This record gives sequence, C-alpha cells and structure tokens, in this order.
Amino acid sequence: MSYQKLPYKQNLTLFTDLYQLTMGQVYWAEGMAEWESVFHHFYRANPSGGGHTVAAGLEFLIDYLTNLRFEEDDIKYLTSVPGNDGKPLFRIEYLQYLKNLEFSCDVDAVPEGTVMFPHEPLVRVKGHLLMAQFVETALLNLINYPTAIATHAARIAWAAGEMPVLDFSARRAPGIDGAFTATRSAYIGGFAGTSNVWAARHLGIPAKDIKGTMAHSLVMSFDTELEAFTAYARAMPNNCLFLVDTYGTIEGVRHAIEVGKQLRANGFEMLGIRLDSGDLARLSRRARRMLDEADFRKASIVATNDLNEFLIQSLRNQDAMITVWGVGTNLMTPSLAGVYKLAAIRKPGGDWTPKIKLSDQPIKVSIPGTLQVRRYRTLNGNIADCIYDEHTDISQGGTMISMKDQTKQMRLPPNAQSHNLLVPVMRGGQPVYQLPTIEQIRHHRMVELHHVSDSTKRFDNPDEYRVGLEKSLYLQRENLIIERRGVSDWEHEAL
Amino acid sequence: MSYQKLPYKQNLTLFTDLYQLTMGQVYWAEGMAEWESVFHHFYRANPSGGGHTVAAGLEFLIDYLTNLRFEEDDIKYLTSVPGNDGKPLFRIEYLQYLKNLEFSCDVDAVPEGTVMFPHEPLVRVKGHLLMAQFVETALLNLINYPTAIATHAARIAWAAGEMPVLDFSARRAPGIDGAFTATRSAYIGGFAGTSNVWAARHLGIPAKDIKGTMAHSLVMSFDTELEAFTAYARAMPNNCLFLVDTYGTIEGVRHAIEVGKQLRANGFEMLGIRLDSGDLARLSRRARRMLDEADFRKASIVATNDLNEFLIQSLRNQDAMITVWGVGTNLMTPSLAGVYKLAAIRKPGGDWTPKIKLSDQPIKVSIPGTLQVRRYRTLNGNIADCIYDEHTDISQGGTMISMKDQTKQMRLPPNAQSHNLLVPVMRGGQPVYQLPTIEQIRHHRMVELHHVSDSTKRFDNPDEYRVGLEKSLYLQRENLIIERRGVSDWEHEAL
Repeated sequence: MSYQKLPYKQNLTLFTDLYQLTMGQVYWAEGMAEWESVFHHFYRANPSGGGHTVAAGLEFLIDYLTNLRFEEDDIKYLTSVPGNDGKPLFRIEYLQYLKNLEFSCDVDAVPEGTVMFPHEPLVRVKGHLLMAQFVETALLNLINYPTAIATHAARIAWAAGEMPVLDFSARRAPGIDGAFTATRSAYIGGFAGTSNVWAARHLGIPAKDIKGTMAHSLVMSFDTELEAFTAYARAMPNNCLFLVDTYGTIEGVRHAIEVGKQLRANGFEMLGIRLDSGDLARLSRRARRMLDEADFRKASIVATNDLNEFLIQSLRNQDAMITVWGVGTNLMTPSLAGVYKLAAIRKPGGDWTPKIKLSDQPIKVSIPGTLQVRRYRTLNGNIADCIYDEHTDISQGGTMISMKDQTKQMRLPPNAQSHNLLVPVMRGGQPVYQLPTIEQIRHHRMVELHHVSDSTKRFDNPDEYRVGLEKSLYLQRENLIIERRGVSDWEHEAL
Repeated sequence: MSYQKLPYKQNLTLFTDLYQLTMGQVYWAEGMAEWESVFHHFYRANPSGGGHTVAAGLEFLIDYLTNLRFEEDDIKYLTSVPGNDGKPLFRIEYLQYLKNLEFSCDVDAVPEGTVMFPHEPLVRVKGHLLMAQFVETALLNLINYPTAIATHAARIAWAAGEMPVLDFSARRAPGIDGAFTATRSAYIGGFAGTSNVWAARHLGIPAKDIKGTMAHSLVMSFDTELEAFTAYARAMPNNCLFLVDTYGTIEGVRHAIEVGKQLRANGFEMLGIRLDSGDLARLSRRARRMLDEADFRKASIVATNDLNEFLIQSLRNQDAMITVWGVGTNLMTPSLAGVYKLAAIRKPGGDWTPKIKLSDQPIKVSIPGTLQVRRYRTLNGNIADCIYDEHTDISQGGTMISMKDQTKQMRLPPNAQSHNLLVPVMRGGQPVYQLPTIEQIRHHRMVELHHVSDSTKRFDNPDEYRVGLEKSLYLQRENLIIERRGVSDWEHEAL
C-alpha cells in the first residue's frame, strides 16, 4: 500500500499567502506572467546547530503541484477579498486568467534522504513567472518541516547507534498531519517503528513496525499492578512489554518478572519492560541486573520520558542498560528556515538575466543564476560540493570559492567520482520522476549519511563541510552585488 | 461560512497509538470494556514559562469524537498487525466488537479561549472504559498543539498592546493543517489577520482580515525597485504597502514615498511600508521621519523578520516606530505537554473508585476523582480556582489547599461570584454544546484575559495564580498516595 496523495479533502490551491495572489496580479497586469523565471529553495543554517541536513517532503510537493488548479469556488471566494477601500482586491479578468492556468514549470529537486548543506538548492522551479512565484508558500510548507524532522530523527538515531528508536510523537505533534509528517520523516531518518497506526497505514510503513503496549491507565484500572500484567499476558501473550513505573519501578520489575515466568511456562517470551520516569540510568542498570538474574537476558528495556539526542548520548555515557528508545515530544523541532528566492528571469525572446537580493547581512544575499550542485566523492566519503550555474560546463574541472572566505579556494578534482544533486522531477508541469518507496528513501538516507564524516555529524561544534561557488558564478555574484548596491544604507547613514 | 469538520479525506479512527488498541483488547477480554471511567486532560506547567494558558482545539475534538467509528477497512487493516511471534496481535472477536462500537461517553470541557492554569482539567471524559481510553491520542493531539499556539499568540498580542499583529506562519508551519491550526489559534489568541487564504476561508475568518502585499521577488522581477512599486500601484492602488529592503532600506523608503505621491494624486492612499531586515528600531525611526516629512503620517510601518513577544517588547522599549507586527516562524512553539489520566473507575453495580498514578516527582502524581474547577472572581479580576470532586458540594463554601505547599490554605469566598469551568459538551456520545463562532471564541479569550492580572501575564517570573484542591479531595489524594506507595523505591534503594 503506497501513499501518494496529501490527506486533505479540500482542494489546496488557496493554501497560499495572500501576497502570492497580489503579486500575480501585478505580473498579469504588466504582461509578465508568462516570462520565464528560476526560483530556488534553500536554507542558510543547518537545523539544531548540526553540520548537515536530510532533505524530505518532495513526495508531498509533487502531489500538491500535480493537483494545482483554481476551481470555480476558489475564484468565487477570491472575488470576496477586499482591498483597503473595501472594493475588490482582484480584477475579474485576472481571476479568469487564473482559472485557466495549469502548472507548467520544470521542477528539479534532490531526492528525499539526500544530505544537504547551507545554500545548496533543495528544489529548483523554472518557467512561468506567475506560477513559479505562486507555489512558494505551499512549497516551503511541504519541504521545510519534513526536512527539519528528518534531520532531527537522523540525529537521534545516530545518538542511539545500533539500538532502535521508536516514534511516539502522535500526542504532542502539531495536528493530525503534523503527526503524519513527523512519522514519515522519522522513518526516513532512521527510526525503527512508530506507534501511529493511521500514519503507518497510509504511508505504507510495514505493520510489524507499529509498536506499543500499555499506559499507566491500564495498570490503574486493575486493583493491583500484578493483576494488570497478568490480564495483559492473558489477552496478548505475544506482545508483553510491561510498563513498570506506575507505583514504583523496582516493585514493577518484580511483577514483570513474575508474569514473565508464567508466560514462559506457557511457551511465550516476555518482550521486556518500559521505564517512563525517574533516573533512567540507575533504574535501567538495576532492572537489567534483576532481569538477568531471573534469566530474562534477552528482555528489552525500553526508555521513554522526554528523550532527545543529547539525553540518549548522556545515558549511554552513563552505561544505562537501555536497549530501545522511545521518542515523542522531542522529535518535534523548529521548522527548517528554508526560503525560496528568485534567481533569474527571461523575457520572451530575450536572454536570461540573473537576479540578486541584497542584505546588510552577507548570509542573506542570494545566489543568482540557474543553479545545480555537484558532489565530489571518494570511497572514503564526500570531499566537497560545488554550486554552479547549469550553463557553465564544469565537466573538465574548474575552481570553487567559499562564500564565507574568498581566500578559501579549491580545484574541482577532475578524477573524483561526482554527480549532480538536483534531478528532474517535473517537465512542463508533468511529473517525470519515479517516486521511490519509503523504504527506498530510508535506504538512500542511510547511504548518504555513510558518506558524511563523523566530525560533520557530531553535535558539538560540527566540522563545516566544504561547499563553494564555482569561480565564474562567484565573480558574477560579486559584480552584481556591487552594481546593485548603489548608494548603500552605510553611505546613507554616514550622510 | 463556518468550518465544522477536520480537513481530512480519510477516516481518522485509526489515528491512535497502537497501545490504545492493545489495552482495549485487555479490557474487552477481561469483561471490563464497559466499566465506567473518568479521564482528565490537564497539563503541569504553562507553556513558554508563562503564568497562564489559553485553551483551544475543542471544536476539532468534538468533530473527531462525533465521527469516531471503525469501518470495515480499518478492521481489515488491524487484522494485519502482527505480535512478536508474527501471529495476529488482535483477536477477530475483539475487532468485531470494535466494529459495532460507538462513542458513548460524556464529555465536559472548558470553552475555547478560557484561561487555564496547571493541573486544572481542560477536558473530562466519562463513561465506557475502552472508548474513554481509546480517544486519548487524538484528544491530546487535537488539544495540546492548538492550546500552545493560542497561548503563544496571546502573549505576542499582549506584547504588541493596541497594535495589530498579523499571522504570516504558513511557510514555516508544520504541514498544511499545522498552518491551519496555527492560523485558527492565532486568531483566537488575538491576532488581527492572516496571510493564509485557505485557512481563513475554511475557518470563516473575515476576508478583510486576510493580509499581504509583496515579496522581494516582485521587486527583483523588475529592472528597478521604483518600476516594481509603480507597477504594483497601477495594478492594485487600494493595497499598496511597499517592501523597502530588497536593495537598501532608506532608498526603498524614498521610492515608496515617490509612488505614494503618485497614488495620492490619483485619489488613493499608500498603506505604508514593510521592513524585513536590519536594525528595525533604527530603520523604523528613520522611515517614520521620512514618511512624516513627506506628509504620510498615517502610513503604517509593518515589521517582519523572526519576531516574537520578547523582540516586540524590546523594540517598543527602544521607541521603534513600528505600527503593525508580522509574526511567522516564531508563532510556532513547542506543544503543550498535556496529559490524559485515568482518575476513577466504576464496575457495573459498584461504587466509584478513585484512581491515582504515583511518581517520584510530586508534580507527576495525578489527582483522583471526578473533577470540576470553580473560578472565583470579583470585579477586579480572578481571585482563585478550586479543583474539587463533583460529588462534593462546595456551594456553601469550604477550604482549598495548595498542592505544592499544604501550609497555604484559603477559604472559598462564599460571597464572591463563581462559576464552573467545565461545561457539558457531549452526553452519551452526542454533542450537546452549541459551537461558538471563531469571533465568539476570540471575544471569550479577551474577556478571560481581562480578568487575569498583569503580574500573571508578564513574561519574566510571572506571579503564580492561586489554584488549590478542595480540602476533602486533598486529603483523599494524600491517603491514596500513602496507601498505594507501599514499599517505595526509596526503601528499595535503601535495602
């Protein structure tokens, strides 16, 4: 069963910031709507202070773009939006134009699970100016959050090493599809399973990876903990993982062992116990000793309680005897601060004009051109990524320059293996990309992370991976900045 | 137009943690499924370190509960979920039982927009044990996140004082319905408008409150900023708010003034300008001076750029001349850490038995009983809230005791105005609650916050509002703790 559609019953075309529609009216009125344009989606800093990012969300984006059209009732609604004088904001002729519009752009994007670095485009949209602009809001929404969560999940899974991590985020996730997206991104990021039945079903996550056992309320519903465990074992002898901290953890472990022995006598094996409060390091060591002494050496010790990558790392450093990690609340993370910027424009019959956005903050100055990213790799891992304009031939080598420090330069290694990160996704608005399964995406992420060094993956002060601009692109950008800057605010302030 | 349904095309019944279904099988197998139970949704600490919380999300919850049923294909899917031995986790007879089940519980809840404090129930579910347990996951999902956002929005709106705050969160929000929920909660929390067209439409937010003008890409699409502003003014003279920082803010303000004069000559008035980068305090003062000197005294200065309540407060303290605040990324906030706990149970023909969950952390010990909250109020504002068991008559007064410090006691003022916070929402699974409009919810929030003191609303070290347990409830809880504790982990550790 494979999920291909966003789970909404309403048409999503109006899921947009109002200004996309007002800007569209300007392009339309000025006869610019059908000019060609290039927009890039990228971000400026890795989430969580880390050294890398794991791309996700593309499948949702393709679904949105494929179904993008203005229906009669969308148009009707837009006629009701007033301008400041109470009169309609939109002209009827413009709305009619929208009604006949189809998404006709070319889209190139990095496959989900690809490891990315700041300033590298995750998605490139090329074509019809009005449409390429219009899709900004949904594109950012559908890529930013899944990417942040996939990245965070990969960090957590990395902290847990070989041990499985389970997604228990449904109750703290931001809405039904916030949970849905979190479960999908967590699975892509390397989580072993989820408690979210609806998400697993509609995402095609194998049913064996849906996990869960009991809450405190089950224990409380019975007169004693022992009765609760016994009843559970009667009803589901093949799913016995006992939550032991409802009244007191040590006593709870004793009860689990007692019921575990009964189970074994009946030919079943207790899966283990779950700790949900208290000093997890100390309690897990004590529980392990008790379980081992009772000959339940294979019984798992699952830990939950606001875990994140740092707590997991800390608990492992304290020799906690935890074998499975459940993460809920802290899978949630701030969204990736991804942006979508115009980079080039072409009037009918004209040439491409590169476009730049300035800022007093150098990191916020955009990169003009039709960008592609080339990744250089040896058997030992990635060497560097070069951002270049697709119209420049770098197949025979070249030089790249760091955007942060122009004294850092590097020859593009002519003999290294290399490949372009952006792949064709849509042409003329039609999908041309074979959607991978969620298992394939997960595998891709695994291979990608394998090529990233541990020093880039570490949490504290991660090593900065080498990303540069191809030299001619670098120089073009520099010239554009100087040319555009004109009388700068610096000068204005000084005057 | 009023939105009454969650925006999903799939049935949401399986939106649940797996363990709700496994626990259900235990209750069913033990003949306990139809015992009566009481569960409360509450939280232990106000979000963002604040002094209060604004409840939200109830409308979504009622929609979910009203449509809760297991369909044929849900049942079929559940037969595919394996236990640890690869054999089915669920028994066919149990799944048949689920298929015939309807939600039949009583639900009491606080109206959306009500101001709440730690340990006070926001929702109470009473009835059929299996069903009351089953709804936990969706209930927490549908209440926790909207409540956190509504609270955060109210903080931001409070920081902005009389000035309007606009919701620009769609691009950074967690998924389509994450954005939808954020827009709804922001509006309830006091935001003046939103850029999210889809959300506004389906939530019934007035079309006049949908806001937005232009992005940097519009300015970049033209050869010069002045041409871009001029073209915008031609296309939409009744919506001119110019984004001035694409190339340089001061120069941008000059261009805005130039086009503003043209607009005025044609009988239209420029709405204002938007600042999106740089030192907002300094630039806004400079822009204000320029606008005033050019006789655009009423022109707004809208500020955006990762604003939150602290930045708004700081900018106001720096005499920033900002008149409208746009908030996006930082409207998002961690979810409320709300929990849902069993508090009492009744076997057929028996009496209610109070239930308690222990913990080494005193704050995590639950409150047993069928709880209600009574709020005491004078003309000057709220005095205190008393949590009591509904079976206790407090109409003639009584005493309440702080859960944190039992030496803090207070007589319930017999002459003060008071009312119960939980109101009937469903009876026997049928809705009995007249859903308010979003405008009514917003108004209720406004009145509620009016009764909360500024010292409780402040951000730093807010004054703790008085919440206590009615004395007989307090004593019952204390006795249950001692009785249940038995041989505690303290003692185990010492042995």
